[in-house]
Amino acid sequence: MKNFDINTDPHRRFNPLLNEWVLVSPHRAQRPWQGQNESISTEVLPKHDENCYLCPGNVRANGTHNPKYEGSYVFENDFAALKQEEVMYEEEIKHTFFKAEPERGISKVICFSPRHDLTLPEMSVEAIEGVIKTWQKEYKELGSIKYINHVQIFENKGSVMGCSNPHPHGQIWAQSSLPNQVQKTQNCLKAYYEKNGTTLLADYLKAESKNGQRIVLENDHFVALIPFWATWPYETMIISKRSFGRITDLTDEETKAYAKILKQLTIKYDNLFNTSFPYSSGIHQAPTDNMEHPEWHFHMHFYPPLLRSATVKKFMVGYEMLGESQRDITPETCAEVLRELSDIHYKDRVE
Amino acid sequence: MKNFDINTDPHRRFNPLLNEWVLVSPHRAQRPWQGQNESISTEVLPKHDENCYLCPGNVRANGTHNPKYEGSYVFENDFAALKQEEVMYEEEIKHTFFKAEPERGISKVICFSPRHDLTLPEMSVEAIEGVIKTWQKEYKELGSIKYINHVQIFENKGSVMGCSNPHPHGQIWAQSSLPNQVQKTQNCLKAYYEKNGTTLLADYLKAESKNGQRIVLENDHFVALIPFWATWPYETMIISKRSFGRITDLTDEETKAYAKILKQLTIKYDNLFNTSFPYSSGIHQAPTDNMEHPEWHFHMHFYPPLLRSATVKKFMVGYEMLGESQRDITPETCAEVLRELSDIHYKDRVE
Ligand SMILES: O=P(O)(O)O[C@H]1O[C@H](CO)[C@@H](O)[C@H](O)[C@H]1O
Ligand SMILES: O=P(O)(O)O[C@H]1O[C@H](CO)[C@@H](O)[C@H](O)[C@H]1O
Repeated sequence: MKNFDINTDPHRRFNPLLNEWVLVSPHRAQRPWQGQNESISTEVLPKHDENCYLCPGNVRANGTHNPKYEGSYVFENDFAALKQEEVMYEEEIKHTFFKAEPERGISKVICFSPRHDLTLPEMSVEAIEGVIKTWQKEYKELGSIKYINHVQIFENKGSVMGCSNPHPHGQIWAQSSLPNQVQKTQNCLKAYYEKNGTTLLADYLKAESKNGQRIVLENDHFVALIPFWATWPYETMIISKRSFGRITDLTDEETKAYAKILKQLTIKYDNLFNTSFPYSSGIHQAPTDNMEHPEWHFHMHFYPPLLRSATVKKFMVGYEMLGESQRDITPETCAEVLRELSDIHYKDRVE
Repeated sequence: MKNFDINTDPHRRFNPLLNEWVLVSPHRAQRPWQGQNESISTEVLPKHDENCYLCPGNVRANGTHNPKYEGSYVFENDFAALKQEEVMYEEEIKHTFFKAEPERGISKVICFSPRHDLTLPEMSVEAIEGVIKTWQKEYKELGSIKYINHVQIFENKGSVMGCSNPHPHGQIWAQSSLPNQVQKTQNCLKAYYEKNGTTLLADYLKAESKNGQRIVLENDHFVALIPFWATWPYETMIISKRSFGRITDLTDEETKAYAKILKQLTIKYDNLFNTSFPYSSGIHQAPTDNMEHPEWHFHMHFYPPLLRSATVKKFMVGYEMLGESQRDITPETCAEVLRELSDIHYKDRVE
């Protein structure tokens, strides 16, 4: 009987942040692709688009005029998934099968830049620092509202990720409850901290640094890597070297280092297929429930859908929806590919 | 303070099959859509396509000739995600952070019909019965292999669901471990059975039948409904009225009734947007681990991506990936829409 080879044999890997498994089929990347191709826009965008409801000075759906903002700009989502209003709630709805609870919250949109044609990798490190400062302000303000216990900062980038406007922007959904995924991570982080007295991600980072295979980028304060248990082909995580739970805990130096690694990582992404690389990203951090959370360790996830090229994505469908996430190429291979890519954005290259 | 209205106010609903929540934002279906549109193929397919590797008599990627099959036809996936080979496994891989285990299994493809241009809703009830009999045979045969503990039967339909060939076909991934989602459901079903002595889904079905709002279709042996906790807009579940755990437990009469409701439900789906309706579907049933599973209750999930039209889908992206699933329209509204649709396939309608 041959020995198990993690680089070539089908296997499952364990995700200690969600207490779940992922199926890895390294050999499967070789199969031919005859399926759907995504369309990519090669359109050159204007610096200001008069039809864009996010550009400075333009009118939004509800008639509001955006100010002539210069850095980042935040407003409440005109089509919010959550509402601030408090409603009375009858306990009898708590039926075993028809269990429902009202949910209060606030949804906001954050324009990253007044420029319609830029994305994070094309913005200056200083401008990205400005975005981080806005995230800090929002996390603090929203988090201080009594009924808000969780602040989810995220970005959907690219039409393939359901983003309907190329103007660089992200969102914040702040709400009373901890969403499923955060609750699961919280449980895992807490159990680990109680057992070991250190944060799970601090110890994970040590193990990854020693190993090296999955590290993509590193600076004094942050590491970007492909987690051992990544489900999306080029999924990455940015982890702070120091253990702290909240974006508001960042020192000035750390803020700068975070801005830098954000720029560098997204440049590598764009360089992978010489395209504006789509993804959903978001920050996982301590709940804003007024409790101590020594178990939390600041990190940011990037979930990009592309697999083979700018137009062929990985479909998380039948088996994945009914069974479990499955990937066709190892995290180690993908990390090597990202590591080798240039640090200079493909649009800035002089040939 | 106004009273909570489940039809209009944002709320969370609890899924007792996964022990998870879903965020429901009923009012949000009104927002305008400027995002990505899926392309739909209006191409009329031939009955036999000489370039299709699934059509009878044609050659596959590995050089094999398909037989001139007449009903359904099963073969091992030429690009299988799982392999049958047993490998030796060193225990020391069980590191806290680098936990991996080899996974053995078999992946198969099932052609539903020799006809390249048909899909389930366009096939006869007898032909669908043939597909069910093939599923039974495969579940039994694969399940009897010693190292196979779970048999996942599923279908990805439509290019938007990653299906690369319109020839009607499904897949089976059989493997040693219980995939995440199945393990979660098993835990929930078991806890319920141990507490109540009845299956969770038998009792759920009673509650839904009494309520009526979410029922889409019903016959003597099966019900098709939109679960109270559905995440995809037009997600449905087919549940057997009798409590049994395995597709091989179906009586002849139940097999016929299952074929009928499969045809009727998929006709309604096609009629929703007058298009060949994309979805991923799959059967959840008892593991093949040689244990008794009185807690299991046969059911089939349909996860369709479309939301507003044949070309606008619901994106499960940023918030959903990082936080929790979110839907923009209530299950009750969607069930009513499906219920009202004609039982005659739009292609067969004489105007
Ligand atoms: O096996 P297929 O049809 O080539 O592949 C399709 O279904 C699989 C199982 O859900 C997925 O893993 C693939 O991403 C998808 O493209
Ligand atoms: O709010 P947007 O950008 O209109 O909407 C997008 O992001 C949301 C949050 O991930 C999703 O619920 C939507 O399906 C998606 O289209």
